[in-house]
Amino acid sequence: MLADLIIIGNELLNGKIQDLNTQTLAKSLLKKGIKLRKAHIVMDGTEDFGEIIDNIQKKSQYLFISGGLGPTLDDVTKNMLAEYFDFEIVENHKAYEIAKFHYHRGGREYDKELIHYHQLPHEFTPIHNPVGYAPGIHYATESFKVFALPGVPSELEGMLEHVIIPEYIDDGEFIIENITYKTWGVPEAKIFGELCPGLWQKLEAFGMVASLPHITGVDIGVSVTTNSHDELTKIKKKIHKIIMDSNIADNIWHIGNESIEEVIITEAKAKNLKIGFAESCTGGLCGSRITDVSGSSSVFWGSIVSYSNDVKMKTLEVTAETLKNHGAVSEQTAKEMASGVLKEMQVDIAVTTTGIAGPGGGSAEKPVGTVGIGVAYKDICKAKIFNPKGNRKVLKRKFSDLAMMNLLRAIRDY
Amino acid sequence: MLADLIIIGNELLNGKIQDLNTQTLAKSLLKKGIKLRKAHIVMDGTEDFGEIIDNIQKKSQYLFISGGLGPTLDDVTKNMLAEYFDFEIVENHKAYEIAKFHYHRGGREYDKELIHYHQLPHEFTPIHNPVGYAPGIHYATESFKVFALPGVPSELEGMLEHVIIPEYIDDGEFIIENITYKTWGVPEAKIFGELCPGLWQKLEAFGMVASLPHITGVDIGVSVTTNSHDELTKIKKKIHKIIMDSNIADNIWHIGNESIEEVIITEAKAKNLKIGFAESCTGGLCGSRITDVSGSSSVFWGSIVSYSNDVKMKTLEVTAETLKNHGAVSEQTAKEMASGVLKEMQVDIAVTTTGIAGPGGGSAEKPVGTVGIGVAYKDICKAKIFNPKGNRKVLKRKFSDLAMMNLLRAIRDY
Repeated sequence: MLADLIIIGNELLNGKIQDLNTQTLAKSLLKKGIKLRKAHIVMDGTEDFGEIIDNIQKKSQYLFISGGLGPTLDDVTKNMLAEYFDFEIVENHKAYEIAKFHYHRGGREYDKELIHYHQLPHEFTPIHNPVGYAPGIHYATESFKVFALPGVPSELEGMLEHVIIPEYIDDGEFIIENITYKTWGVPEAKIFGELCPGLWQKLEAFGMVASLPHITGVDIGVSVTTNSHDELTKIKKKIHKIIMDSNIADNIWHIGNESIEEVIITEAKAKNLKIGFAESCTGGLCGSRITDVSGSSSVFWGSIVSYSNDVKMKTLEVTAETLKNHGAVSEQTAKEMASGVLKEMQVDIAVTTTGIAGPGGGSAEKPVGTVGIGVAYKDICKAKIFNPKGNRKVLKRKFSDLAMMNLLRAIRDY
Repeated sequence: MLADLIIIGNELLNGKIQDLNTQTLAKSLLKKGIKLRKAHIVMDGTEDFGEIIDNIQKKSQYLFISGGLGPTLDDVTKNMLAEYFDFEIVENHKAYEIAKFHYHRGGREYDKELIHYHQLPHEFTPIHNPVGYAPGIHYATESFKVFALPGVPSELEGMLEHVIIPEYIDDGEFIIENITYKTWGVPEAKIFGELCPGLWQKLEAFGMVASLPHITGVDIGVSVTTNSHDELTKIKKKIHKIIMDSNIADNIWHIGNESIEEVIITEAKAKNLKIGFAESCTGGLCGSRITDVSGSSSVFWGSIVSYSNDVKMKTLEVTAETLKNHGAVSEQTAKEMASGVLKEMQVDIAVTTTGIAGPGGGSAEKPVGTVGIGVAYKDICKAKIFNPKGNRKVLKRKFSDLAMMNLLRAIRDY
């Protein structure tokens, strides 16, 4: 089964905001064995609307639309759908009840003269919105199902997760699974070049292969479609043998789709370890990434974000001599920050970042992208300098990736 | 002038990663007066490739492709372009020199037997990559220009910013500007309903209107296309008069496309203020958002991320009685965290977050989404409870939005 997604919104095409809905929908649909075939990001009221849906109907069984259901004049999804299917816009009693309920829940009164959430294209039915005000809408023929959802990411996700996936989508005939081997320490070209020359082709026998490079390593994925769990188990075993017999076996740090944050929390929990960061250049990103994972509170104690040298000295007890002689971006400072966190927070493992995210602040000796990553646990206190490339936000992300990798190594060594 | 973007990557359509390139490209092109008409996210080696480009050629003057230029077997963009334009793949000397240079810069040797960066469709020319290894490629007819760029966001952004925009794209005939008024304190339906019933239509006379709701307020944007700066100035004045004569004039907190983080830094710098956070539920996100802005080091001193109560008590001096009697998520704790930061970091303004991001940890009295935001400056120390909705990541974002809004109010009150 295939699905297409049309994302409607000028804000996405003029760079004001970033699409988050493709990823959410893709993940939700895979659970039901439906593959997202294509995402189309288009302008409000696009003239191509009919042409695009004509084309989608030839290729996919599901169409999801996000955006254009709100209360303002650019919200014309319902009108476009009414025109395309040649339905009139009519008052829908169930939609009225749902809209009234959504407003009541938000502590407001639904005014049907001002807001038109109860008017739908004839033949469409309304869908509850567990997060916001606008109901979704749905229409199905024998071979084609259409869902129009709000564009606000939290509303789309809530409606998919709590209403559409459980209530509207049948379990698929097929199981689709992404089998992922995460590596560190070898560049992408080397893995599929000199190290394991035939690896890609061998894996391709089981499904679509993908390779995703990060600063810390490469994720190798095989997307497998089968019709039984037994078959899936057999395929997994074969893939496992191929990878573990290859020259990158020692570079695998995780098998599965979990993020490094999730792996860190699982393994730290198993060893009953408390974790803390001292973050300079990452500004809090390491702690924010770790706390994106539910359950992080059992292992993550906290961070000292010491953006200024004052905080490095006062709260982390980095010495003025170290800052003067080695600079804030140095192995020495990264190490003192790490021992400072161990002492201040009484954690088992401390990891620190101190670097230059740019665009200013670089020098010939320490260019933008230079970062010191410090690690302290038990009687170990060490640090290393890295030099990734990119703009400010990319560097912050890469610095935090390096911190995560060093944290996971420390947990495993503990 | 219009452009389309084709984003190639199975990882985007199976939910592994999120597209970041649409926003980057949209922003870059607008500077040259080019509008992004549509973004197409498609699978590696999609069968529709020819059909999609045929269609784009009818509607846009530019085609950008991201992804599929890497060294692995799923990187088939060059092959697809060669097939579409009916060019052979040939060795390109300039591409060889560029690839050698990129490898040399990365401290590695370019091996032309293993990597095929020097092979391009005939008539295409290579483009320098300021960040990574793979060169981009370019081909132009009189009416249609094609650029294929790497999919890695930092490489795409570097190549656009430093090579393609300055060297390959002419200044446009038109100036396109997003004129944005940012409001707080009124819901979207109210602004364009009872408060300012004809506002949308009045603004629409000047260009495409868009409305973007956040937890803290609504951004109202007008996308204006003109052919002179004089004309743009006149239009800006007219829009300004319309908004300032309307009932939301007092709700405008910023005019312009700057983020709240950027406004905070500009205004704190102007008043020479030092800022610090104590973050519990946001885990470091407030500090990370502030430090996404270059120049933040002159105002942002640091954060204490006190995820555990131990850190709240030890580093922030929140009392055990407060935690016992009021709970960690309370106005009282938010206030004590704020005064704790003022004392520990010696900053002028402290803002704090303590809440329940879920999915666990909620109760009837304090459901998931409950957050206390504390603010301390001068002799003021106050806090308020908010209750936004959403999943864990959405709530963290909304909690940090509330912190930013309260921080900006404090800076203005200082």
